[in-house]
Amino acid sequence: MSQLEKVLARVDDNLDASLNRLFDLIRIKSISTDPAYKDDCRSAAQWLADELTAIGIPSEVRDTTGHPMVVGHRVVEGKSGPHALFYGHYDVQPVDPIELWHADPFDPQIVTREDGSKMIVARGANDDKGQLMTFVEAARAWMEEAGELPISISILLEGEEESGSPSLQPFLDENKEELSKDLALVCDTSMWDKDTPAISVMLRGLVGEEITLKGPNKDLHSGMYGGAARNPLHVLCDMVAGLRDENGRITLPGFYDGVLELPEDVKKMWDGLGFTDEEFLGGIGLKNPGGEKNYSTLEQIWSRPTCEVNGLWGGYTGEGFKTVIPAEAHAKVSFRLVGDQDPELIRDAFRAYLKSKTPEDFELILHPHGGDKALRMDFDAPALAKGKEALSAEWNKEAVLVGCGGSIPIVGKFKNTLEMDSLLIGFGLDEDQIHSPNEKYELKSFHKGIRSWVRVLDELAKG
Amino acid sequence: MSQLEKVLARVDDNLDASLNRLFDLIRIKSISTDPAYKDDCRSAAQWLADELTAIGIPSEVRDTTGHPMVVGHRVVEGKSGPHALFYGHYDVQPVDPIELWHADPFDPQIVTREDGSKMIVARGANDDKGQLMTFVEAARAWMEEAGELPISISILLEGEEESGSPSLQPFLDENKEELSKDLALVCDTSMWDKDTPAISVMLRGLVGEEITLKGPNKDLHSGMYGGAARNPLHVLCDMVAGLRDENGRITLPGFYDGVLELPEDVKKMWDGLGFTDEEFLGGIGLKNPGGEKNYSTLEQIWSRPTCEVNGLWGGYTGEGFKTVIPAEAHAKVSFRLVGDQDPELIRDAFRAYLKSKTPEDFELILHPHGGDKALRMDFDAPALAKGKEALSAEWNKEAVLVGCGGSIPIVGKFKNTLEMDSLLIGFGLDEDQIHSPNEKYELKSFHKGIRSWVRVLDELAKG
Repeated sequence: MSQLEKVLARVDDNLDASLNRLFDLIRIKSISTDPAYKDDCRSAAQWLADELTAIGIPSEVRDTTGHPMVVGHRVVEGKSGPHALFYGHYDVQPVDPIELWHADPFDPQIVTREDGSKMIVARGANDDKGQLMTFVEAARAWMEEAGELPISISILLEGEEESGSPSLQPFLDENKEELSKDLALVCDTSMWDKDTPAISVMLRGLVGEEITLKGPNKDLHSGMYGGAARNPLHVLCDMVAGLRDENGRITLPGFYDGVLELPEDVKKMWDGLGFTDEEFLGGIGLKNPGGEKNYSTLEQIWSRPTCEVNGLWGGYTGEGFKTVIPAEAHAKVSFRLVGDQDPELIRDAFRAYLKSKTPEDFELILHPHGGDKALRMDFDAPALAKGKEALSAEWNKEAVLVGCGGSIPIVGKFKNTLEMDSLLIGFGLDEDQIHSPNEKYELKSFHKGIRSWVRVLDELAKG
Repeated sequence: MSQLEKVLARVDDNLDASLNRLFDLIRIKSISTDPAYKDDCRSAAQWLADELTAIGIPSEVRDTTGHPMVVGHRVVEGKSGPHALFYGHYDVQPVDPIELWHADPFDPQIVTREDGSKMIVARGANDDKGQLMTFVEAARAWMEEAGELPISISILLEGEEESGSPSLQPFLDENKEELSKDLALVCDTSMWDKDTPAISVMLRGLVGEEITLKGPNKDLHSGMYGGAARNPLHVLCDMVAGLRDENGRITLPGFYDGVLELPEDVKKMWDGLGFTDEEFLGGIGLKNPGGEKNYSTLEQIWSRPTCEVNGLWGGYTGEGFKTVIPAEAHAKVSFRLVGDQDPELIRDAFRAYLKSKTPEDFELILHPHGGDKALRMDFDAPALAKGKEALSAEWNKEAVLVGCGGSIPIVGKFKNTLEMDSLLIGFGLDEDQIHSPNEKYELKSFHKGIRSWVRVLDELAKG
């Protein structure tokens, strides 16, 4: 029996105890958005610092202006692998509407299905207590069985992820030297499906503008002025309509600079995922993909940029009709970015476009939003190959490299502030109802999640 | 001294008494929208019926389900002129905000300016008590001086004009035979300017649709779905933007069927009005006319059709950003019509256009609004020439034929139900602040308004 096999066996032997520890953590009501649970948040942080320290990763609760951080380090001398920083968050979402829960959200239940499969039901069972404990328990198994970790590990757990992480950036700035390691490990994402592990390698960026277009100095009667007075809503519709051509391509000059074509093998991998428009679009009541022609739906959401009107309003919006020409029209427009697209160049091009479409007697007022580059793991990075290898071995199915249409702010902060890439591995399922009543985590996700991290650490240690 | 001159002289002699009668009417607080003033509305109707009867036009108060009508008739035998129905309304707008009035709105004041000109300040001084009393006092002067009216006159005064005239259509339907005369005289419009009398000869029609466009079955996260899920707001903007071409022309097939070119002499009259874009558009904070190229601003609002977005909304409209793809988008769109444009054909063309632009997996829900043809006085109608002649003589300046960008519902009802054209003559000024605090009516408007009607009746009698 190899050492790896022994550690994996210990994970199996420890499972009940691991579950009990997860349940203890879940029982602490660490809802970060509600000030009533401030002390609970600190208790959760303290509980984790104590557990990590007991395992052999000396950790402490560090104050911020909000909820505290948990930071710990265990440096393993004389090993060639990277020093990794593990990130998770101990805070959870509120439980409303409470009446839709089948049991107390903070009293975790093991529910067994007819087919024998089991799930853990509780607030935080997945997001992110269940997920972060897969790593903690993997570290414990290594320490207990081998007496040491395969690589040096630092820990950063925050308590404000569900409330916008206001303290995170200042904390990273202040502790940059301590926290800048070779690689971040983040456990807050999902599997492709219940049998297929996944690593998220592409996250789209975002840049947006809130637009206010002012025309006449007051709302006008459309009988008195209709025809002579240019209508701000009509101008705004022209602006929005002109952003996309008939093939779904964005028309801003230079918009596609930095958009990378997908490597053939990744495209092949995605094509082989068994993803169907029927299921994905059918789930939201649609049939046909709405993005760029000649790109699959997965490409449209993972590897292609887009433009969305997130809100638009003006004029009379109540019951019946009021025949006004409104004085103002408003929109919130954002772009999802990929590859090396430069958010500031795109903002400039968008603003220039809007100005060129603004009548000379109108006023255009812009408020910037976002401005984050897309993030991607280098497809050739050794850590990515190792992670893939470890996951494929554990799940007996090749791990897939997936995209993520939205951003995960922590990954950008690690990149920009700590100059660190992130390996995004998680064991959640899309069906887990995170943020909703009856949040759950598969027992299999928890168990094989721990085993997966055991293997990832082992692989990373190989150099 | 001709008989006309004698009647005009009597108007001058009667002026103080006429003013006192107007003041008596103004003092009755006939606010039709507020149930607290129900009895006042009836009192105003009764006051008018009594006055008309005393003059020699036997009149009565007729009940409706709302505020009553005043109806009277005086038939003059053996005259060749038309039998005219005079229309006005005795109800007034509420007085809020009361604190902005310089005096009690129902205690009429004569205010003298530094240049000696005088105005009557009170709620209803213009709209419509001052205006309708110009006709009543003209009839009085004819009866007192000549013992008879020049033509047969019927009277219809309503008390719900400021609250949408709910009882008017049923009343016209029930009394069609009694009220269908040769011509309607309506006193509820304005002069071109304080020296230039005007007859409103073109009123634009209206047809509109409220549009609901349903796409995804719920609001979506634009990271997760952006690109793949077609955005209803974007589709709606495409729809709106496609309605106008770069020359400001509406693109719906057949839209311009029935749009008449303006007669050269009318165009010349309008060009000679001294109307400037600087003044008209400058007053609303704009510089450049926004309608069809190669048409003047006056043509754009009086004789050309238009399309306006009166309201449009969807997605997140609060503070900050929420990167949603909304499930729905909404708009209220209306068209102002001219000439012989057919509202129902245009509604059909608009609906067909919207359907053609609706993605097959979207749902389009339409609610009709309006559907009124434009109205116009035949430029060659004898009554129009006579009215113009009478006004030009009184004001010593040629009366202009003007358009009205909006509709005046009563005119459509007279046309459609009673098959009667309307001669729209009024003596208000745009500056009169009707519906606002410190509503006023020039004493000159009142005085020369009475004299104008004396002359109009005289001209109409000429057959």
